[in-house]
Amino acid sequence: MRAEIFQNAINSIADAGREMLNRRFSANNKAENGTEVKISQLCKELLSEKGEAMGTALARTVIERYKSLDEEGRLSFFITLRDEFEPETEVLEDAIYTYLNDPTRENRQDLEKAVEAPRQALIRAMNMAPGGTSALLKMREDLQQCLKQDKSLRVVDADFVHLFSSWFNRGFLRIREISWETPATVLEKIIKYEAVHAIADWSDLRRRLETDRRCYGFFHPALMGEPLIFVEVALTKELSDAVQPLLEPDNVTKAEDADTAIFYSISNCQQGLKGISFGNFLIKQVVMELKQELPNIKTFSTLSPVPMFRKWLDSNLDDFPEQDDELGTWLKTSEFAESFHEFKQRNVDSASDFKDKDRDLLIKLCTYYLTEVKKGSAPYDPVARFHLGNGARLERVNWSGDVSPNGIRQSYGMMVNYLYDLSSIEKNHEAFVNNNEVIVSDTVAKILAIDKKR
Amino acid sequence: MRAEIFQNAINSIADAGREMLNRRFSANNKAENGTEVKISQLCKELLSEKGEAMGTALARTVIERYKSLDEEGRLSFFITLRDEFEPETEVLEDAIYTYLNDPTRENRQDLEKAVEAPRQALIRAMNMAPGGTSALLKMREDLQQCLKQDKSLRVVDADFVHLFSSWFNRGFLRIREISWETPATVLEKIIKYEAVHAIADWSDLRRRLETDRRCYGFFHPALMGEPLIFVEVALTKELSDAVQPLLEPDNVTKAEDADTAIFYSISNCQQGLKGISFGNFLIKQVVMELKQELPNIKTFSTLSPVPMFRKWLDSNLDDFPEQDDELGTWLKTSEFAESFHEFKQRNVDSASDFKDKDRDLLIKLCTYYLTEVKKGSAPYDPVARFHLGNGARLERVNWSGDVSPNGIRQSYGMMVNYLYDLSSIEKNHEAFVNNNEVIVSDTVAKILAIDKKR
Amino acid sequence: MRAEIFQNAINSIADAGREMLNRRFSANNKAENGTEVKISQLCKELLSEKGEAMGTALARTVIERYKSLDEEGRLSFFITLRDEFEPETEVLEDAIYTYLNDPTRENRQDLEKAVEAPRQALIRAMNMAPGGTSALLKMREDLQQCLKQDKSLRVVDADFVHLFSSWFNRGFLRIREISWETPATVLEKIIKYEAVHAIADWSDLRRRLETDRRCYGFFHPALMGEPLIFVEVALTKELSDAVQPLLEPDNVTKAEDADTAIFYSISNCQQGLKGISFGNFLIKQVVMELKQELPNIKTFSTLSPVPMFRKWLDSNLDDFPEQDDELGTWLKTSEFAESFHEFKQRNVDSASDFKDKDRDLLIKLCTYYLTEVKKGSAPYDPVARFHLGNGARLERVNWSGDVSPNGIRQSYGMMVNYLYDLSSIEKNHEAFVNNNEVIVSDTVAKILAIDKKR
Amino acid sequence: MRAEIFQNAINSIADAGREMLNRRFSANNKAENGTEVKISQLCKELLSEKGEAMGTALARTVIERYKSLDEEGRLSFFITLRDEFEPETEVLEDAIYTYLNDPTRENRQDLEKAVEAPRQALIRAMNMAPGGTSALLKMREDLQQCLKQDKSLRVVDADFVHLFSSWFNRGFLRIREISWETPATVLEKIIKYEAVHAIADWSDLRRRLETDRRCYGFFHPALMGEPLIFVEVALTKELSDAVQPLLEPDNVTKAEDADTAIFYSISNCQQGLKGISFGNFLIKQVVMELKQELPNIKTFSTLSPVPMFRKWLDSNLDDFPEQDDELGTWLKTSEFAESFHEFKQRNVDSASDFKDKDRDLLIKLCTYYLTEVKKGSAPYDPVARFHLGNGARLERVNWSGDVSPNGIRQSYGMMVNYLYDLSSIEKNHEAFVNNNEVIVSDTVAKILAIDKKR
Repeated sequence: MRAEIFQNAINSIADAGREMLNRRFSANNKAENGTEVKISQLCKELLSEKGEAMGTALARTVIERYKSLDEEGRLSFFITLRDEFEPETEVLEDAIYTYLNDPTRENRQDLEKAVEAPRQALIRAMNMAPGGTSALLKMREDLQQCLKQDKSLRVVDADFVHLFSSWFNRGFLRIREISWETPATVLEKIIKYEAVHAIADWSDLRRRLETDRRCYGFFHPALMGEPLIFVEVALTKELSDAVQPLLEPDNVTKAEDADTAIFYSISNCQQGLKGISFGNFLIKQVVMELKQELPNIKTFSTLSPVPMFRKWLDSNLDDFPEQDDELGTWLKTSEFAESFHEFKQRNVDSASDFKDKDRDLLIKLCTYYLTEVKKGSAPYDPVARFHLGNGARLERVNWSGDVSPNGIRQSYGMMVNYLYDLSSIEKNHEAFVNNNEVIVSDTVAKILAIDKKR
Repeated sequence: MRAEIFQNAINSIADAGREMLNRRFSANNKAENGTEVKISQLCKELLSEKGEAMGTALARTVIERYKSLDEEGRLSFFITLRDEFEPETEVLEDAIYTYLNDPTRENRQDLEKAVEAPRQALIRAMNMAPGGTSALLKMREDLQQCLKQDKSLRVVDADFVHLFSSWFNRGFLRIREISWETPATVLEKIIKYEAVHAIADWSDLRRRLETDRRCYGFFHPALMGEPLIFVEVALTKELSDAVQPLLEPDNVTKAEDADTAIFYSISNCQQGLKGISFGNFLIKQVVMELKQELPNIKTFSTLSPVPMFRKWLDSNLDDFPEQDDELGTWLKTSEFAESFHEFKQRNVDSASDFKDKDRDLLIKLCTYYLTEVKKGSAPYDPVARFHLGNGARLERVNWSGDVSPNGIRQSYGMMVNYLYDLSSIEKNHEAFVNNNEVIVSDTVAKILAIDKKR
Repeated sequence: MRAEIFQNAINSIADAGREMLNRRFSANNKAENGTEVKISQLCKELLSEKGEAMGTALARTVIERYKSLDEEGRLSFFITLRDEFEPETEVLEDAIYTYLNDPTRENRQDLEKAVEAPRQALIRAMNMAPGGTSALLKMREDLQQCLKQDKSLRVVDADFVHLFSSWFNRGFLRIREISWETPATVLEKIIKYEAVHAIADWSDLRRRLETDRRCYGFFHPALMGEPLIFVEVALTKELSDAVQPLLEPDNVTKAEDADTAIFYSISNCQQGLKGISFGNFLIKQVVMELKQELPNIKTFSTLSPVPMFRKWLDSNLDDFPEQDDELGTWLKTSEFAESFHEFKQRNVDSASDFKDKDRDLLIKLCTYYLTEVKKGSAPYDPVARFHLGNGARLERVNWSGDVSPNGIRQSYGMMVNYLYDLSSIEKNHEAFVNNNEVIVSDTVAKILAIDKKR
Repeated sequence: MRAEIFQNAINSIADAGREMLNRRFSANNKAENGTEVKISQLCKELLSEKGEAMGTALARTVIERYKSLDEEGRLSFFITLRDEFEPETEVLEDAIYTYLNDPTRENRQDLEKAVEAPRQALIRAMNMAPGGTSALLKMREDLQQCLKQDKSLRVVDADFVHLFSSWFNRGFLRIREISWETPATVLEKIIKYEAVHAIADWSDLRRRLETDRRCYGFFHPALMGEPLIFVEVALTKELSDAVQPLLEPDNVTKAEDADTAIFYSISNCQQGLKGISFGNFLIKQVVMELKQELPNIKTFSTLSPVPMFRKWLDSNLDDFPEQDDELGTWLKTSEFAESFHEFKQRNVDSASDFKDKDRDLLIKLCTYYLTEVKKGSAPYDPVARFHLGNGARLERVNWSGDVSPNGIRQSYGMMVNYLYDLSSIEKNHEAFVNNNEVIVSDTVAKILAIDKKR
C-alpha cells in the first residue's frame, strides 16, 4: 500500500518533469549546431540558477541520461565528475591565504566552502530526481567498478561516501520486520541478497520466516522497497552450535518455548553503500525488539562464520612448530603434534573426512586464531573484529558448525557464537578498543588457559 | 497508522537507550568527584569511538540533556559548539601547506576533511537519537534566538544550514494532501502555522478543506506528523481578485465546475528550517497534482499579498513629484496629482475609508511598485521576487483584494495574481534572472504602457 | 489512507453504475408512456433475474431514488415495502399444508423459505449499492420516524433488525482506538454522538484524548469512518467518585502511574442500529486491550449515571412511609424521617442546594433504589440492568458524582461505580440471571445491611 | 500492515477468551461427574442467555472444540446440528394455526420466527469467535464431505448457505488488485487456488503479475488474507485466440500499447462458499477498473475453456448421422462426413495428432455445441451458461486455443472468446433470459448461417 502511494508520488513528479522538459528539450537541449547537449553540460546547468528554477525536471534528465550510458560512457562520466567539478583553484587559494592571514572561525568556514568540490552539490541536486536516491546508489555501484581501473576516481567516491553517510544516518532508518506478510517485491530481494547462507528458493525462504524465525531489516524512507541490511534470527532452546539444523525445512518449534535468539545471518544489500555500516545498530535494535515481543528470550547470540580460519591455518601452520610462541609450545606436546600432523596429511573436503579427534584440535586452533592472531592490534578475522568491536563476547567455538562445502572450505566447518549482553556491551567495547582485550566466556577462557599452561 | 508504527519504533529505540544508559549512568555519568558529566563532555564522547559503540543511546542522552537547559544554558551550549568543535589548527595548517606544496585533488580533499568543523559530525551523531531530527530543528530555532545576542554564533548556524539543506533535499520530501481525513495532530498544526490568512478555529479550518478547496504539504519521513510547508488552494471559476470571499464559510461550490486553481496562502512551518526554501517545489508539484486530478482546471494562479507596498508608498511618496523618473512624470499630470494629494490627506485605516476613484490610482501605483521598484536588480517586494523568480508571470493587480485590517495596513488592500503557466516557466525564469525582466500579462502591460506614455 | 482507498473503490463502483445506468435509463427507465418508472417497480426488478445481471447498478438507482424522497415519499415507500413485499399467500399456504401433512425437516425448511418476506431479499439487494450499508442504516432511521405514525410498519422494521443483527455480528466488528491521531472525519462524529457527558468543542475533545485518557470504538468494515459505539476511559489513581474532575481541562496525569480505568461514558452512534447492542462486547474488549497495554491497571470500573433515580424518588417517595416494606421501616426511624422530610421540602436545583447531611441520605436511598426497586425481576434502573446483566458488580454509590444541571435533574447528582472483574463476570452474570441476585461490593453490602437491620 | 493489525485484534480477543475460559473451564467445563462437557451442550449454552454474557469466549471454545474433531466427530456434530437445532414442533404448530386463523402480517412474521431453525442463530453466534468466519467456511467445507454420505444433512447446509449469502453480500466485498507488491501470504493462495491454468511456481506467478498482466480479487473484511475469487487478465493487442502464448515466460509487452483485456482465468477459492457466486460482479467490476486505469483498452473479452465439449462430442457423435436435426443434415454432406469419419478414427491425445483440416470441422462443431445443445432451455456448456447469462456475447470460437493435455482432453483444444461490452450487457442478458437467445458476433453468426443453410 505504502509502496503504491509512493509510486504515485514518484509518477506524478515524473510527469511534471516530462511535461516541462519536453518543452525544454525541443527548444534548448540541442545545441545551436544540432548536436545533443552533453551530460556534463546538463550537470553544470543543474548547479546553476537555472537548476533552481527547473528543479526536479532537470535532475531527472541528468539521471535518465546517465542510465542510458554504457560502460565506457560511465567511466567518462566519472572522469568528468573528477575533473570538472573540483573547486576553482584561484578561489580556493584566495580563501587559503585569507585564512592564513587572519585565522578567524569565519575565514575558516569560508575556506571550508571554497574547498568543497561542487560535485557534492551536484550529487545533492541529482537526488531531487524521482527515484534519485536509488539511482545515485546504483551510480556509486558503477563507480566502484570503474575504481578498479582508475584509482584516481577515489576522490569522486569519497564525495559519495560523505553524502551517503549523512543521508543514511541511523536517525533516518526504519526497522521493519520482514515476514511472510511482506510484499513479494521485498521478499525476492531477501532471496537475492542473502550473503551468508544462500536461500535456495521460495520454500527455503518461507522456512526462514516461520513462527520460530524472525527477520528484520533497516529501510530508508526514500527506498522503501529495498532493504539496506537484514538479519535472520532463529528462536531456539539453548545456544545453537550448528547452522544446518537451523536451515532444515522441518521441525518448526514454538516461539513461546524459546529462551535464546540466534542471529545466524546478516547481509548487507546495497553495493552502493559499501563502507557505510549499519550492522552494529541493527543487531542491538533487534535485541530490543525481541526483548519486548518475547520476554522469555534471555540469551542473544550470533552463530557466525570464521571466514579466514582455514586460509590462515593452511598457509601458516607449517611454520608454527619452529616458533617459540604459545601456540608453538602447545603444538610441541607430542599428543597434539601427532593429531595435527595426521590432520595435515588428510585432504579435508567434506564433513565425512573428519575424525572425532579433530574436534578438540580444531576448537583449540580456532580459539587461538580468534584470540591471538591479529591484524595490527585487532583480531585478524573480520567477523570477530566486527562483533567484538560492537561489544559482544566470544562465547563459544563450535566444531562442525557449518558442514556445507562452503563451511568446510572457509573454516573447516568451524562456527562461533558471539554473545550480545546489553549490560556489558559498553564495558566490553571499551576494553576492546582501549586495551585490545578480547572478552571471552568462561568456556573459552578455560580452553585458552589449559592450552596456554601446558 | 503510520504514525503509530513510527512511534513504536521510536519507543523501542528509546527503551534500548534507557536500558543501556541506566547502566552507563550509574557507572560513568558522574565524574570521579561526584559531579555530573558536562554536556560538552558527552558531546565529545559521542564523537569518539565510544559513540560508535553506544550509538543511539548516547545521542539520546545528549538530546535529553539539551532539552533540560534553560535559556542561559542553551547560549552556553552554543558557545561550546562554536569554540570546542572547530578543527584543530595544527592539523588544518598542515593540510593547507601540504596542499599548497602539491595541489593535487587528493590533497585538496584531505584539506576539505581537515577544514570541516567537527560540529557537523556532532550534529549528524545527535540525529541518531529517537526524535533526533525534530530535536535538532528545535535546537536551531533556539540558536536563532541566541544569534540576536551574539552574531559570532553564525558559524554554528551555518553548519546546521549545511546539514539541513542536505537532509531536507527535495528528493526526500513527500507531498501529502491535507484533508478532513487527515489526523487531528497534523490539522492542529495547520491551524497553528497558517501565516498569511489566520485560521480562527476548527470550523474555519473545515471550510478550507471543503470539496472546493485543496491543501497540500511537504513532509519529511523523519517528521511525519509535522508539515514543513503547506499551500492552500481554492478551486474557482475565473481568477479570484479578493481573498475575503474565499474565506467565507458558505457558498461551497462544486470542484468539477471549477476552471481555475487559486493558491491563496503558502506557509512555512518550521522556524528551524529558516533559509531553506521549498515553496518553489511545492507550488509546481501541486500544479501537477491538480492537473491530474481535475483536468478541467486550466489556470493556476496565486492570490498574493503585497506586504511592503504601503510601507514603500508612505515613506517615499512625498519625494516623487520632484523626481524626473517615469512615475514622477505620470504623477505630474494634474489629474493624478489631485487624486494622489487627496488620497495622502486621508487616513486610510479600513475599507470604509476608500473612495471609488482610489481604485485606479492604487492599481497604477502598485503596478509601478511591483515592476519598477528594485532592490539591486530584483523587485523590491519579496513576494514578487519569489514568484517571478519561480518563473511565474505578473498577471493582475487587484484593488480591495484583502480588506482585513492586516490587508489595509500592509498594502492598502491590494493583492496580486501571479500566474503559473508550466509551458513558460523556464523562459520567464531565464528572462528574469539574466535580463532582470519582469514578465507581465497583457492587462498589466496595458496599464504600464498607458501610464508611461502620458 | 484506508479511507481514501475505500473511497476509490466506492467511486469506481459508482462510475460503473453510472455508465451502465445511463444507458439503461435513457432506454428503459421511462415507461412506454413517458412517465418515470416507480421506485417500487425498480425494487421488483432488483429482485428479479434482471437484478442479478445488473447487480450494483440497479441497487444504486434504488438507493438514489430513495434518497430523493421527501417525508411523505418515504412513508409511502415503507408502506409499499410492507404491502408489496409480503410472501404470496397461496404459496405460503401450500407450504404450510405440505408441512402439516408431512412434518419432515425438509418440508419445515421449505415453509421457512415460503414464509420469509421478499423484503429481506430486497434489503440484501439494496446493500449491493456503493454506500449501501450506510444508506440502509439511514433508511431504518427514517423508518423509526414513520413508525411513530403507523405501528403497522413494525413488520418492516423487524426485517431490518433481523438482517442488521446478522450483518453487525460481533465477529465482523473491528475495535479501533480513537486518538488525536484519528482523522478529523471520525473525531467530529465523536463530538456529535457523545450522549452522556456532552463534548463542548475540539479542545474539550482533545482533553478526552490526552495521555491519561483512552477512547475505543467498534467499527464495521462497510462503514469505516463511522463509529457504531464508543467508550471513553479515564486512567486514574483509585476509583473516581465524580465525573466533573475527569472532564476538567487541566491536571493531565501520567498513564503509567494509573492503577484504575474508569469507563465514564459509553455512547451508541447509529440510530439505525437501535435495539442491536454492542456495549457488552465493547467494555469487555477494552478491558482486555488496556490490560495488555498497561499492566499496572488492576481495577476496571464504570462511573455511571443513575438516570431514573430522581424520577423514582420524586414520584414515589411520598407514599413510602405508609408502606410496610424495608425502605418504609428504615424511613420510619425518626433520624432519617427528619432528614428526608427536610430534604423533600427543599427545592434541589443545583449543587449549591445540597447540605452535607444529604450525602448519607441519598447514598442510602440510591443504594436501595438500585438493589431493591425492580421492573419485573430485574432492576428498574436501565443502566444498572445493563451492567449487572453484563456480570459487573455494584461497587460504590457516589454522592455529588455529577453536579451538572443534568446530573442534578436526573439523579440528584448521584453516580455509581460498576466494577468489571473478569474473573467473576460469569459467576455474577449467572447469579443475576438465574436468581435475580444483584452482586454488590462489601461497601455496598454494609450500607444495605445496616439499613436493613435497623 | 493491515494484516498485522487485524492479527493483533484477533489475538487480543483470543487472549480475552483464554482468560475468561480458563476460569470457566476449571470450574464448569467438566460436568459434575468429571466428564467433559459435550460440544452440543456448549452450543446450547451459546444460544442461551449465558452465551450473551460470555460472548466471544464461549464461541471460541465451541470453534476450538470443533477443530479438534476427527471425521467421525464432525459427522456426528452435523447430525447434532440437524437434529437438535430444529424448531420446537409445538411452538411451530401454534404459530401455524394462529396464522391460519388470522393471517395478518404480524402473525405471518411470528410464524417466520417460529419456523427458523435455531441452527441459524447458532451459526451467527459461532461467528463471534476470533477467526469465526474463516472457521465457519471450513466447517461448511467439511459438511460438504459429509453430505456425500448423508443427504439429509442438506437442511443444515441450506442454513449455512442462507447466512453466507447474506454475509458475503456484494456490498461487503472489497476488490483489490493482486500484484507483486501483495504480501506473500495472499500470493501463495493464488498459486494454490488457480483452477483453470495451473501456476507451476513463484516464477510462473511472477509472469502473471508482470506489467502486461493484471489480477484482481474479491476479499471479505473478515478474511482479508483470503481471496474469495480472482481473475487473471492479459493486456494484449487484438483478441487472443490461444492461452499458451499468454502463459509463456517471456515477451512481456507494454501495458500502454494494449487495446484489449483478455480474462483468461477465473477461479473460486473457497469451497465453503460453493453455490454463492461472485464471478459476475467481479468481471464487470474489473472491466470498470481497467477502463479507468487504461483508457486505451477498448475490448474486454474472456478466453474461456469449453469443458464439456469433448465429452459431448465423444458420447453423442456416433448417433448424429441418423438424426434428422440440423447437425445431422449438415453432417450428411459428404464433404464433412468424410472429415468427421476420418477424425473419429484418429486417437487425438495431443496437439500433434491434429491435421489442418480439423480446424474447420471443430470450429463448426463447437459453435453448434455452444449455440444449439441445451440443458433445459439454457446452453449445455456451464461456462457458456455463465458468461451468456452475465450478458456477454459469444464472440469467437478458437481452434488450438489450449493445446495442453488438459485442453485436448476437455475440448480437443478448443477455446472461446466471450465479449463483455457494457453497453449491451443488459440487452443481451434479457434476450438470453426471456427468449433463450444466444447473442453471437457476426463472425459466429456467419459460421452458423453457412452451416445451417447447407
